[in-house]
Amino acid sequence: MTVAETITRLRELVEGNLIATLAPPASRFPSPLREAMEYSLMAGGKRVRPVLLLSAGLATGGEESLLLPFACAVEYIHTYSLIHDDLPAMDDDDFRRGKPTSHKVFGEGTAILAGDALLTEAFRAMAQSPLAQADPGRAVRAIADLAQAAGAGGMVGGQQMDLSAAPGNSTASQVDEIELRKTAALLASCARTGAILGGGSPGQVGALGEYGTRLGLLFQVTDDILDETGSFEEMGKGTAKDRARGKWTYPVAHGMPAAIERASELGREALAALSAFGAEADPLRELVRMVQNRRK
Amino acid sequence: MTVAETITRLRELVEGNLIATLAPPASRFPSPLREAMEYSLMAGGKRVRPVLLLSAGLATGGEESLLLPFACAVEYIHTYSLIHDDLPAMDDDDFRRGKPTSHKVFGEGTAILAGDALLTEAFRAMAQSPLAQADPGRAVRAIADLAQAAGAGGMVGGQQMDLSAAPGNSTASQVDEIELRKTAALLASCARTGAILGGGSPGQVGALGEYGTRLGLLFQVTDDILDETGSFEEMGKGTAKDRARGKWTYPVAHGMPAAIERASELGREALAALSAFGAEADPLRELVRMVQNRRK
Repeated sequence: MTVAETITRLRELVEGNLIATLAPPASRFPSPLREAMEYSLMAGGKRVRPVLLLSAGLATGGEESLLLPFACAVEYIHTYSLIHDDLPAMDDDDFRRGKPTSHKVFGEGTAILAGDALLTEAFRAMAQSPLAQADPGRAVRAIADLAQAAGAGGMVGGQQMDLSAAPGNSTASQVDEIELRKTAALLASCARTGAILGGGSPGQVGALGEYGTRLGLLFQVTDDILDETGSFEEMGKGTAKDRARGKWTYPVAHGMPAAIERASELGREALAALSAFGAEADPLRELVRMVQNRRK
Repeated sequence: MTVAETITRLRELVEGNLIATLAPPASRFPSPLREAMEYSLMAGGKRVRPVLLLSAGLATGGEESLLLPFACAVEYIHTYSLIHDDLPAMDDDDFRRGKPTSHKVFGEGTAILAGDALLTEAFRAMAQSPLAQADPGRAVRAIADLAQAAGAGGMVGGQQMDLSAAPGNSTASQVDEIELRKTAALLASCARTGAILGGGSPGQVGALGEYGTRLGLLFQVTDDILDETGSFEEMGKGTAKDRARGKWTYPVAHGMPAAIERASELGREALAALSAFGAEADPLRELVRMVQNRRK
């Protein structure tokens, strides 16, 4: 199996377990809350975060079946953030991945609740997982790390800075700080959490956290580059919206050539952070290439 | 110290630690997210849930300082649910506890994010607590129980059922199910979680869960009775709004005399669930009386 095939296998593993990992009996979730949760979960994401967590966990000696509920949980956290970000009071987006956003399909109230439920389910899935029974010490460290990355000091804080930023009036360093918080904090935590759950040494946890931060910043810069250059058909959502709103992204703040150079540099730094690892980290190296080469 | 004074002391302990328990350094929370979180946290709630968790934990042998972060966490969960429930897309309330609601002060976007941040902070505070380091097995059980109660099968599910209920068209049993999920599930979990963290036996955890469910239903019925009979000055929010909206509550569905009888019955059942406990459960008994006699 090639490294790319390994990534595909991990993605399909997550894809096939996202619904099953929701609280049993999920049939007790009232309608249309359950439908709204499933709609956004199964809207065709690239599953970068769960594959990253799994790859980091496997590279540090973890067992796939024990890592899987945590991988699904980070996809719940990511999905909740997309649902809430798309709301009229936030980015006000009607489409994501070529499909109408949650509030367009289910209404704002249910979309808010579906996000709330997915965030809560993420923590339930982790705390009720077999790994949390077998090694609760690792589980609480993982839960703490992800919550810190997702909360007011991380992802939600980044969203607030984005919301508050006066159009066209952010400094370049503010843009960098927003991108670090909005995207890189959670991706870094996925890599670090995988290493914690896999039983990695403190040095390995630190190295994979650094790798994850570089990958996260790379992911955001390539997203911003695609927002400037991509078409609706490629992206599945409106493009150049950030610029139209007067929001500063990396390419708007620093120029497109600098953004492309920044992406190369971040890719090199991400790979450098893996220098102490052998072939067991090849899927993590492949993720860098995939993010660099993505077209949507 | 009388039992009532013990409750007051526990409430003040929570009140004094709510902000400090937010992630250090909370100064990294961007403005106005931090202000919105603090505004709703310090808006003068009765702190029933944290006092309940502390009382249950102390009655089963727990140590106050170790229980405290979990007590603050359940108040974060409760506060987030109020902020989101008040949003225009949900109950659309302009006032709560006599003060303008979060979205009226900070705008909808920040109110949504403040709720998201408080929910996430709740799990971070629990997972990073000293008790989670000392006894991670108890901590993951507590986190799992609270997440289950707060999620799509519990509180968020109840809010969805409330949102979906056709005005004036709910059956009495639907009303009971909504009240069970919206309010009683989390209160039951607070009592059960306190017993788990305190080191209670399975029998004690079960008894306190039953007590918490009865107390939670009692809390909701008295809330509905007050909604029918209270004034704005007493309640600090608009009253009879449920009826005006055509939403069925217990007194609307079953009549006021039945609601008052139901409250008495629930109080007796809550006390009966404590029969195996001695004086160490007196604060839990006092909470029943306080909920029965509350005027707001």
